[in-house]
Amino acid sequence: MSGFDQDHLLYEELANRIGMLIEKGTYRPGERIPSVREMSRQQGVSISTVIHAYYLLEDRGLVEAKPQSGYYVRTILPSALLEPEISSPEPDPGQVSVQELVMRVLRDANNPSLVQLGAALPNLELLPTENLNRLLNSIGRELGKEGGTYIIPPGVEALRAQIAQRSVRAGCSLAPNDIVITSGCIEAVDLCLKAVCRPGDIVAVESPIYFGLLQTLEVHGLKALEIPTHPRDGISVAALHFAIEHNPIRACLVISNFNNPLGSQIPDENKKELVELLARHDIPLIEDDILGELYFTDRRPIVAKAFDKTGLVMLCSSFSKDLCPGYRIGWVVPGRFESTIQWLKYTASVSAPTLPQYAIAEFLASGGYDHHLRRARKEYARNVARISQAVMKYFPSETRVTRPSGGFVLWVQMPDAVDSLELYSLAIKEGITLTPGYLFSPSKQFRNFIRINAADWSYKIDHALETLGDIIAELARK
Amino acid sequence: MSGFDQDHLLYEELANRIGMLIEKGTYRPGERIPSVREMSRQQGVSISTVIHAYYLLEDRGLVEAKPQSGYYVRTILPSALLEPEISSPEPDPGQVSVQELVMRVLRDANNPSLVQLGAALPNLELLPTENLNRLLNSIGRELGKEGGTYIIPPGVEALRAQIAQRSVRAGCSLAPNDIVITSGCIEAVDLCLKAVCRPGDIVAVESPIYFGLLQTLEVHGLKALEIPTHPRDGISVAALHFAIEHNPIRACLVISNFNNPLGSQIPDENKKELVELLARHDIPLIEDDILGELYFTDRRPIVAKAFDKTGLVMLCSSFSKDLCPGYRIGWVVPGRFESTIQWLKYTASVSAPTLPQYAIAEFLASGGYDHHLRRARKEYARNVARISQAVMKYFPSETRVTRPSGGFVLWVQMPDAVDSLELYSLAIKEGITLTPGYLFSPSKQFRNFIRINAADWSYKIDHALETLGDIIAELARK
Repeated sequence: MSGFDQDHLLYEELANRIGMLIEKGTYRPGERIPSVREMSRQQGVSISTVIHAYYLLEDRGLVEAKPQSGYYVRTILPSALLEPEISSPEPDPGQVSVQELVMRVLRDANNPSLVQLGAALPNLELLPTENLNRLLNSIGRELGKEGGTYIIPPGVEALRAQIAQRSVRAGCSLAPNDIVITSGCIEAVDLCLKAVCRPGDIVAVESPIYFGLLQTLEVHGLKALEIPTHPRDGISVAALHFAIEHNPIRACLVISNFNNPLGSQIPDENKKELVELLARHDIPLIEDDILGELYFTDRRPIVAKAFDKTGLVMLCSSFSKDLCPGYRIGWVVPGRFESTIQWLKYTASVSAPTLPQYAIAEFLASGGYDHHLRRARKEYARNVARISQAVMKYFPSETRVTRPSGGFVLWVQMPDAVDSLELYSLAIKEGITLTPGYLFSPSKQFRNFIRINAADWSYKIDHALETLGDIIAELARK
Repeated sequence: MSGFDQDHLLYEELANRIGMLIEKGTYRPGERIPSVREMSRQQGVSISTVIHAYYLLEDRGLVEAKPQSGYYVRTILPSALLEPEISSPEPDPGQVSVQELVMRVLRDANNPSLVQLGAALPNLELLPTENLNRLLNSIGRELGKEGGTYIIPPGVEALRAQIAQRSVRAGCSLAPNDIVITSGCIEAVDLCLKAVCRPGDIVAVESPIYFGLLQTLEVHGLKALEIPTHPRDGISVAALHFAIEHNPIRACLVISNFNNPLGSQIPDENKKELVELLARHDIPLIEDDILGELYFTDRRPIVAKAFDKTGLVMLCSSFSKDLCPGYRIGWVVPGRFESTIQWLKYTASVSAPTLPQYAIAEFLASGGYDHHLRRARKEYARNVARISQAVMKYFPSETRVTRPSGGFVLWVQMPDAVDSLELYSLAIKEGITLTPGYLFSPSKQFRNFIRINAADWSYKIDHALETLGDIIAELARK
């Protein structure tokens, strides 16, 4: 083959390759593609090959040259490329795995064109995002180069001190060194499970319980043993007792205050009993308190950790529900598993992001957090009441709904005939998301339940609930 | 018991409890303790009980009242509390577990009074931290409330598009949708292991290899099979071939460009061979390329992923070594395991922090990253050369040292008689950190090796290397 032919093949191949990248969206309309020199260096081909390839791309209408600037992807691509991809509608959730269903619910939750009753995301209007971001900025300036590094577990001390101080209101008396900062609450729970369980172990859980926790159990090959859970009082300690006597339970997992989806709060005396029961059997309690600050009553509920005398209670929480989901900062109070949890945190993701930890610490120290929470609690209580009333008004009369004492979700039991997955499909067609009850139990026992996010209220949401009610009534009649 | 007695006991108990919190550092010197009303509400006791408790604390010299402001923890605590805690020197590393040793090395790495030759942290002076933080701020303002939420996997699209574009330089042609954003590179590797391995499985690894990866294997109950690894060419493909024929290997893990600690770079033809060998046996390759941008040659090395035709190569990386350790942003290109990895990322820690993803995307798009890298590469090459020369000058003549073609660590083989743990203890006494070779192999075969961070150079560091050389010479004579 002559040198000319080789070269010809080379530049055509290069042009084809770049064309593919444009089609895939790696180089996007309006963006500059690498300069001739850069591309020549990247690809190890001659300048002349690249120039020929770029000419070819120009001929094909994929890029255009701008004088003294370089080659840009054309904003209007030639029609051969303009056709949309073959549409790939989400498969019917009736036929998808729990894994796929979870991801679908989450994807739908990030779709701004839908009425969001699905994911348990906080009301963005009620978060002090701007204030926190200002603190992030000023702390970044203050720390300069030093702020660039990561802080190994247990994490930023100023933040741990603030969390320790707040723990007093939840009935604890923690020291900063009792706390390990994590990347959110799910990671905290994940670390606790890794610290105390081995694959195949049985973990006693409230039922229903937040599906993210069930997924984490699944990833670790753990079996969830569902313990009867009261819609207002949480886990049945008596039932747990029975379960312990008949099963080799390795750990127990509860959302002690405002279980998601129930909104239940384990009464103080039950918390005490729960902790003592587990201590007698040397079983660690993993306590998720992520919603604990969003109470509707006059006082912050205490945590089960407050009754912990043996170090077996591992308290997990985060700022993702009440302050800053996007910062990804949570924590765990690991009790006697402290050093293992620090090490596990390092092996899982090294550390939580640095500046967000400082910014939150500052926000807490300044009183901004308390100020913000006072308003958020009132708004959530009001929105939960409104959504609850709308459910009563629009849903069939056999419908039951929880009366949460905190948080911002409602758990709705629909007539027996209604399948929540079928409802999900029909609701999405009307532009409405919700979370099917299936997800909240490994035995899928809540098929006629749905969880509704009640963090926000508007006429649009009210109307969506009316539509949902009509669909449910229709399904109930089948 | 009379009401008076009860009350008396109550306020003394409250005072004792607050006293304990002051001692533990939950309330710190100079900080305000909760107001009387607040404390009364928190503890469910009367205002009068709190006032009495605060008087008692004042009497004991623990707090002081400031007019119109409240009670503050005294900055000079009474002498009974002033005594330092019983000192708890770190146990001799010779007797500690690998887990403890890792945490010790990391803790020492965050101690600014030590000469830092231990952890493989980048040179903070070479990071564009201020520029990135400015972008973080402007993006936070731009997004407002919307920036408060989290972005579910695969993560922020603008960032994935930038990473896809850069992949072209590493021989790939990725689309934004081929990439999942993670909380750093370790999380990326962790997700890959979870996706393809079950406890008890065997993973073939380069040897030596970064200890954090070995720890992650350990957490998942996986067995590391060490494959001979050349100090300049990385994993021996022939040895891997032999291992595959004699062991049920479930996955293979390599640091393809600039192995930490070796600085080795697998030659292109070996990368191709490696990918093809593994594909023939249907074994996934987990490829860590975290240092790939920090090359000393004239061109970015390509990744093994460039040769992937079956989707079995899972490419992991992050910005933690070359841009912003504290932001905790990494990524994985999961190939055929895409949907599983997205789901696993969600169950592990939901998502990576939001604003840092946007800030990095912006920095990459603006060309700031390339500008920064050009300088960083030169500086690291120079520092590695200087530290290498110092090692040659000060260490015993039998010492061997790697000649890395990228990254910023050196791997040093000392005379046989020298034990790196013993050296670690003696070096710490002289205020110098290093990483003992033990950590880099599950079979602890590198007892007379150390890893030295060569990211920085100064006369102080030069002097520390001289001191180290003296200690090593002393140990070698024993």
